[in-house]
Amino acid sequence: MSRMPTPATTDQVSFLNGRTRLYGIVGDPIEQVRSPEMITWELQQRGCNAVLLPLHVREPDFDAVLPHLQRLANLDGLVFTIPFKARALGLASRLGPQAQQVGAVNALKRSRAGDWVGEMFDGAGCVEAFRRRGLPLAGQRVMLIGLGGAGSAIAAAVAAQKPARLRLHDLDAARCERVAGVVRRISPHTQVEVGVPTVDGMDVLLNASPVGMLGDPRRPIADDSLPDALVVFDAIVKPEVTPLLALAQRCGCRIVQGREMMRGQIARMVDFFLEAD
Amino acid sequence: MSRMPTPATTDQVSFLNGRTRLYGIVGDPIEQVRSPEMITWELQQRGCNAVLLPLHVREPDFDAVLPHLQRLANLDGLVFTIPFKARALGLASRLGPQAQQVGAVNALKRSRAGDWVGEMFDGAGCVEAFRRRGLPLAGQRVMLIGLGGAGSAIAAAVAAQKPARLRLHDLDAARCERVAGVVRRISPHTQVEVGVPTVDGMDVLLNASPVGMLGDPRRPIADDSLPDALVVFDAIVKPEVTPLLALAQRCGCRIVQGREMMRGQIARMVDFFLEAD
Repeated sequence: MSRMPTPATTDQVSFLNGRTRLYGIVGDPIEQVRSPEMITWELQQRGCNAVLLPLHVREPDFDAVLPHLQRLANLDGLVFTIPFKARALGLASRLGPQAQQVGAVNALKRSRAGDWVGEMFDGAGCVEAFRRRGLPLAGQRVMLIGLGGAGSAIAAAVAAQKPARLRLHDLDAARCERVAGVVRRISPHTQVEVGVPTVDGMDVLLNASPVGMLGDPRRPIADDSLPDALVVFDAIVKPEVTPLLALAQRCGCRIVQGREMMRGQIARMVDFFLEAD
Repeated sequence: MSRMPTPATTDQVSFLNGRTRLYGIVGDPIEQVRSPEMITWELQQRGCNAVLLPLHVREPDFDAVLPHLQRLANLDGLVFTIPFKARALGLASRLGPQAQQVGAVNALKRSRAGDWVGEMFDGAGCVEAFRRRGLPLAGQRVMLIGLGGAGSAIAAAVAAQKPARLRLHDLDAARCERVAGVVRRISPHTQVEVGVPTVDGMDVLLNASPVGMLGDPRRPIADDSLPDALVVFDAIVKPEVTPLLALAQRCGCRIVQGREMMRGQIARMVDFFLEAD
């Protein structure tokens, strides 16, 4: 009677096994997030046996579920998206420098000591996108519209680049004053002002408001044309070309897209996840 | 000034995105499990945007963590391995037919109604491996060694195939009597007996004991040779050829490996995960 051959081992995927380390992005809803494919790519490019998963935690479940997720022994980090960015702060036992400045967290990692370190990368991604394009922020005159979670992080990260002037706009006046104070502490020589959106006398226009997102036809500024020397950035990821960026393109401006911020943020976030502490 | 091209989208993986549904295998330790690569492969072969992850839950954390994992809204199923097979039963609100017979669960799925259904596949995998090889169990005389979690599930699944004779051996006499009762209920016409391992008068030898695992040089039977008409199965996955299977090969017996049981179990488990309820 003949011996059966050892079965072939083609019935398995190569990107996942028992030793794979886990990261997750936590949001509600979760279907729209792009981090799973992009951060997993970045992790695997760097030779890590790791994936970043979508973790759909319903809003009322957050406080009960998250501390238990943190007890999964092969989970090394978490990213937070809408509506959890503000609540993630409470899960960190220590804060990195950006998170301390902004007072918010969008990523957590388990340190070697076993505690959880929080950091904020929304701003770092914007600055990294400019750096990759070779576009300066130091010494520039910058208009920033929108000071929510992403916008206030962008304000702090741009401030650290020491622009000559930083004009801030948000519908919430108290928020404007708070962020202006943060910027002044980070960069005492920057001329900080709060006021209506304008491109007059500006080198860089940054939109961090939701105006223009997902079919919204509006632009966050009233102007119908822009000076072609202006660099225009929009933090919005969908659509890739917002009404503001479309106008900027028509006027011959250089544009920086939300996707570029996201890519810059991913690089910095994976640095954070993988560095020793 | 020229417009920048839209960035290329090659910086992402194709096997994971925000809509990916999650399954997990829960164990402590977790590094040795093979389900992540094998079940993920099976899910993706069937066209599902889904992955099965290793979830390392430390033994003392199980009772606190598992009910919270079940609240992840995009988690659709769980598989349990050492040391959690017995404890998984308590997480099910309903049991499938195999789980009812054996009184144990190694998989849970979220039903459409939102409750969790438990089922046991250890036995089904063994029977499926024989079916795929075209090797009968019906009408056969079968010796089964080892009646732990996997062994008692194999006893129940083999009983459902209506063998002529089923001889059971385990070091725990009470366990033997309990499993013999289960077999008699499932297949009243099978001649059920409890006793020392033997291949005399047997057509099929099934090992579900840990003897021969991971470098253990022992065999679960005393014999130094086996009749070449005997079919010899070993539930052990590592090594692929156990000392028992090596002897069986030398004697010209047909062998069925633990990996084949695992593959059969995976097919049945994915059927369970994907069927409507």
